[in-house]
Amino acid sequence: MRINLKSSMHVTDKGLETDFLYVQLLEKIKWLIRNSTFKPGDKLSSIRAFSREQGISITTVYKAYAELEVMGYIEARPKSGYYVKANRKHSYLIPKEIEVPENVEEFSPYDMTVEVYKNLDEENIIQLSLSAPAVTLLPRAKLNKTMAQAIRTSKDGGIGYEEIQGNKLLRNEIARHSVNWGGNLSANEIVTTQGCIEALQFCLMAVTNPGDAVAIETPGFFRIVNLIKNLGLTVIKIPTDPETGPDLKYLKSQLPNIKACLFTPNFNNPLGSCMPESNKEELVELLAQHEIPLIEDDVFGECYFGTTRPKTCKSFDKKGLVLYCSSISKTLAPGYRVGWCIPGKFINKVLQIKTTHSLASPGPTHATVGLFFNTGRLDLHLRKLRSSLATQCRQYGQAIRKYFPTNTQISNPGGGCFLWIRLDNGIDSNKLYQKAIDKKIRIAPGNMITGENCFSNYIRIGFGHPFTRNLETSLEILGQLITEMIADTQ
Amino acid sequence: MRINLKSSMHVTDKGLETDFLYVQLLEKIKWLIRNSTFKPGDKLSSIRAFSREQGISITTVYKAYAELEVMGYIEARPKSGYYVKANRKHSYLIPKEIEVPENVEEFSPYDMTVEVYKNLDEENIIQLSLSAPAVTLLPRAKLNKTMAQAIRTSKDGGIGYEEIQGNKLLRNEIARHSVNWGGNLSANEIVTTQGCIEALQFCLMAVTNPGDAVAIETPGFFRIVNLIKNLGLTVIKIPTDPETGPDLKYLKSQLPNIKACLFTPNFNNPLGSCMPESNKEELVELLAQHEIPLIEDDVFGECYFGTTRPKTCKSFDKKGLVLYCSSISKTLAPGYRVGWCIPGKFINKVLQIKTTHSLASPGPTHATVGLFFNTGRLDLHLRKLRSSLATQCRQYGQAIRKYFPTNTQISNPGGGCFLWIRLDNGIDSNKLYQKAIDKKIRIAPGNMITGENCFSNYIRIGFGHPFTRNLETSLEILGQLITEMIADTQ
Repeated sequence: MRINLKSSMHVTDKGLETDFLYVQLLEKIKWLIRNSTFKPGDKLSSIRAFSREQGISITTVYKAYAELEVMGYIEARPKSGYYVKANRKHSYLIPKEIEVPENVEEFSPYDMTVEVYKNLDEENIIQLSLSAPAVTLLPRAKLNKTMAQAIRTSKDGGIGYEEIQGNKLLRNEIARHSVNWGGNLSANEIVTTQGCIEALQFCLMAVTNPGDAVAIETPGFFRIVNLIKNLGLTVIKIPTDPETGPDLKYLKSQLPNIKACLFTPNFNNPLGSCMPESNKEELVELLAQHEIPLIEDDVFGECYFGTTRPKTCKSFDKKGLVLYCSSISKTLAPGYRVGWCIPGKFINKVLQIKTTHSLASPGPTHATVGLFFNTGRLDLHLRKLRSSLATQCRQYGQAIRKYFPTNTQISNPGGGCFLWIRLDNGIDSNKLYQKAIDKKIRIAPGNMITGENCFSNYIRIGFGHPFTRNLETSLEILGQLITEMIADTQ
Repeated sequence: MRINLKSSMHVTDKGLETDFLYVQLLEKIKWLIRNSTFKPGDKLSSIRAFSREQGISITTVYKAYAELEVMGYIEARPKSGYYVKANRKHSYLIPKEIEVPENVEEFSPYDMTVEVYKNLDEENIIQLSLSAPAVTLLPRAKLNKTMAQAIRTSKDGGIGYEEIQGNKLLRNEIARHSVNWGGNLSANEIVTTQGCIEALQFCLMAVTNPGDAVAIETPGFFRIVNLIKNLGLTVIKIPTDPETGPDLKYLKSQLPNIKACLFTPNFNNPLGSCMPESNKEELVELLAQHEIPLIEDDVFGECYFGTTRPKTCKSFDKKGLVLYCSSISKTLAPGYRVGWCIPGKFINKVLQIKTTHSLASPGPTHATVGLFFNTGRLDLHLRKLRSSLATQCRQYGQAIRKYFPTNTQISNPGGGCFLWIRLDNGIDSNKLYQKAIDKKIRIAPGNMITGENCFSNYIRIGFGHPFTRNLETSLEILGQLITEMIADTQ
């Protein structure tokens, strides 16, 4: 949807003449967004067109747009233009009951997690429960070719144990690529793992002892909640705003009880929100003052829809207190299970833990990814992938708005692979799951995703699969099921 | 060394005429072994030769040998003959201080584990610290070829997530092969993992909660001790006899405090001993009476030197209380990190844990091993590997007896990849490690291997590498270093 700013703005001549013209301009646009004249997903005029239409200099428009982008009101999408981002009003509301977290009884996700994830490779089913891109978006042929090459050229074909710290080429390449998110690293600071989740486990073990409390975002992801609990730790939930991330004021009040934080600042699961840079910096400084380690889950960091890679908390880390974790599961090959961590000053502890818990990472897949990075194939692939994901995000969102009941609220993520959807309060998404699976559609119920009962009227929809007619039909069916369920409750 | 039984035996004519001739015969042989006339590793006359020499029927000799084998006095080695096995007197003694375990202060293996294992793929070093066969003994070319085939024929080249429970072909083949150790399984009872250690972790998590106590063997393996502790559990040490395994009487006295047991009945690390079948059965029955789960680490089960695959505790499991764990790291490809567990009645819990902690196993390596098993290449390879390991075990043992001081005591394992060696009480094996590494020889110090200070005069020597002139020289150098260290302490 293309919007002509001219018709809906009232920029005074006087205002246009002041030194702070761009400030006035951005205030006007902010006002229009806040008042829903511009809705999330709406496309703004291009800088050049806006300048021409309004008779304002390109520089002024650019400065206003850039500032609005920094403030999180709009976002630039590569080769596409500027779009209005979600804000609290336009996306969903965080349920009131968890804004100040209490000891709410937790959903036991035992059966549902196994049920939802048991057949990850199942065919004949529309798979909407995953938070990873479809295999068809991934460079299968190039990876296969690279694997043959990696096996041929490696010392022992990947059969023997590799160095505990991990494949050297892969670590070199991770260090090189970290420049994109503000990293300044050497291969010696990196430890490879079996996916990001093993990295998180090792880092948690390195900085806590059983019985300690770890701060996490709420809503959060059940695998992180369960991981923490399985290690004998407790969780302290920090209410998380879809725009600004974890509530730092509340976090500060909890610091005396917290041994470590585990946050996903870039496109967290399930919110899909990206913490503003200034908040990341503030978070790192706050924790540094109290010598509290921050485990940063950046698994979705490369899946951004904007023009630049969002920075990481690690890039603000001066004391080695940020333990950065990531993987290629959301970008290159989920089935390879290749991840890594950059544990700062805890690296020796992490190496000791890896020596106990896995000894070495699987040679062939790690060597393949190292070589794939090294040959420059990654950057090209990532550019295409990001563009596909951004498009799919828009397509899925549009279909959901079209087919779901009007009181549905959906997130407007700035990256990642999933939408977080709030349904009518009367909906039990576990029941919806059952109805959907009967129609060969697999969704992820909100209480399973978060491990919290208060999200039982939410679902997470992964948009990793290209949007097809078939997929649109599935979302239409889902919408019908929800409409019927609401009717049944009334 | 070939021994003529005739000259050293006094079998009476009267005895030979009784119905229980074979019993008298075996009593005599037992007596000769106990009195050190026959030493561990000595070769007995063949059944045919013995029969001819003594004028006794082949059947009688066979029955006596078979019974002695069951009793653990001798062992048959394929295509080689009968050999005297180690017994308590001929191998080392378990240090007195741990026969009744107390709260001895534990060695912090922090730096040593990272130091010893940091460069697993290092060249220019004689690697004696590992408990895995050398890559040169493994079918690299065939595995590489199989991997190319597995990637070509799999649905998505191993790039997408595979089923959480694990690769179906691999699970089928594991079920099929389990017949060798007394298993009677279907693929649905098996969950694949990243090596045996991840299987142990998942099983521990499935049957315990932080704060619970787990019984383990002592001496035991540091990775198991650390794994248990890292999960917030405590260990209860069960004194373990090099011949009969964990002391079941002592175990029984500890049952009220124990939530689960984690034992390595076949060729445990570092003892290398194999629990007799009757003890395995007794152990399983004892634990079943008290509904206590047994986690069985069978990672060395296929590395036997005798004629038949030792049975597992799992084969005696009637209540689903035995959680069996194994991998291909000691037999096929350590670097692939392919393992599995058969968790009995805890399978749903293990699946839930895998969903949290790893989601899926790495596709390409797991598919490759499934196909390798399926094409029948495994059995042929294992026969060759076992023969090589048995030969190397003898060669290393002979060299150590030749070059090490005379008060050295060494284990006489019935399988596995390592010797457990007790040095003079004055030796600190951490210091020996440093002296050896200066000579480009890497050994595993006893306190690091076990995580217990009382084993500081022990070392573990892996015999995974074929015995070469170079290797013999390294053992000679080690012997010299030890001799010098003893001289320095006097």
